[in-house]
Amino acid sequence: MIYDITFPIYEGMPIYEGDPSVRMEAYTLIAKGDTANVTKLCFGAHTATHIDAPNHFIEGARKVHEIDLEKMIGKCKVVDIEETVDAIEPKHLKGLEEVERILFKTKNSNFWNEPEKGFRKDFTYITPEAAKILAEYQIKLVGIDYLSVEKFGSEDFKTHITLLKREIVILEGLDLRNVPAGDYELICLPLKIINELGDGAPARAILRA
Amino acid sequence: MIYDITFPIYEGMPIYEGDPSVRMEAYTLIAKGDTANVTKLCFGAHTATHIDAPNHFIEGARKVHEIDLEKMIGKCKVVDIEETVDAIEPKHLKGLEEVERILFKTKNSNFWNEPEKGFRKDFTYITPEAAKILAEYQIKLVGIDYLSVEKFGSEDFKTHITLLKREIVILEGLDLRNVPAGDYELICLPLKIINELGDGAPARAILRA
Repeated sequence: MIYDITFPIYEGMPIYEGDPSVRMEAYTLIAKGDTANVTKLCFGAHTATHIDAPNHFIEGARKVHEIDLEKMIGKCKVVDIEETVDAIEPKHLKGLEEVERILFKTKNSNFWNEPEKGFRKDFTYITPEAAKILAEYQIKLVGIDYLSVEKFGSEDFKTHITLLKREIVILEGLDLRNVPAGDYELICLPLKIINELGDGAPARAILRA
Repeated sequence: MIYDITFPIYEGMPIYEGDPSVRMEAYTLIAKGDTANVTKLCFGAHTATHIDAPNHFIEGARKVHEIDLEKMIGKCKVVDIEETVDAIEPKHLKGLEEVERILFKTKNSNFWNEPEKGFRKDFTYITPEAAKILAEYQIKLVGIDYLSVEKFGSEDFKTHITLLKREIVILEGLDLRNVPAGDYELICLPLKIINELGDGAPARAILRA
């Protein structure tokens, strides 16, 4: 049983405020006499389901193509967070000490039912205090069902920095709507892009029951 | 044991003749006073390691986001083709009747040692006759270690069309240099892009021993 937990990339989709929008262009077109259909794609590295690399927030830190794939493949727990919760705090992490990878399913999942309403700022996030505990747990990867793990409007980006300093993979923009809480195998494969910044990459992610 | 069989996407990499080149731009930059590093990516849907969808060559056929992921995940055989072979013919397919997914490792693999020399036209390809036999074998996926399964300069694209008509996934641009021939589990996850053409998508692909 495979769950595809990837939100798709398409023109007009919700994009984190300030990030580039998605553009897709018919580069060659059978209907115009070309031999094949070929699309040209343009989007930001943090579009839809994607991972953040340490160099997204920490200058000179590890880049996306340097992250070990083993961190993104293996045992994973999907944790249900009640819809009334706006901030994931230390109290929500009890009993998760031994978990290698955690995906939080929150009220954010509902936002994917109305993507045409655009980017939402009132998403549930992980507090810096909870991030610190996840780092202490020596977790390999943490994921969430919207476009950031950080409170919108944060000025110090402490959640990101706490996780990225410890080289914990941050997996954002997940679509967990159809996935019950529980234990799975995660396979998250980000695009293998090499560039100056290496701040992140869009990914396809699945869970196997 | 994981083999990453993905060739990376970077500016200046070899691109199939006529396809868009890769552009990556620092969209926001910590060094310039922005809060985070964010890259904007532009490239064609058939860049580096990627899959072809039926609508690449067959107007109105299935698009890339409509392809069942199960076709790209599961048992897979890597088959060594001698370096003297320029065309994969029916005689090379003996004994492969029961295989679900095949990746051909050919002389093309050497091209990835000198990517700075640009796109090569003299790559080993699959003949239309061999494609017909693969279709009869009811294979789910066929892969090759360069940017096309079709002879360069073909005017009828019969290899592509034969495979795509049967909805066999074509996986091109693989880097099989470090992979010995044999049996593996393939996990190929293409980007989940939705657009008008849906002709293909870049992918991250791994083999597990």
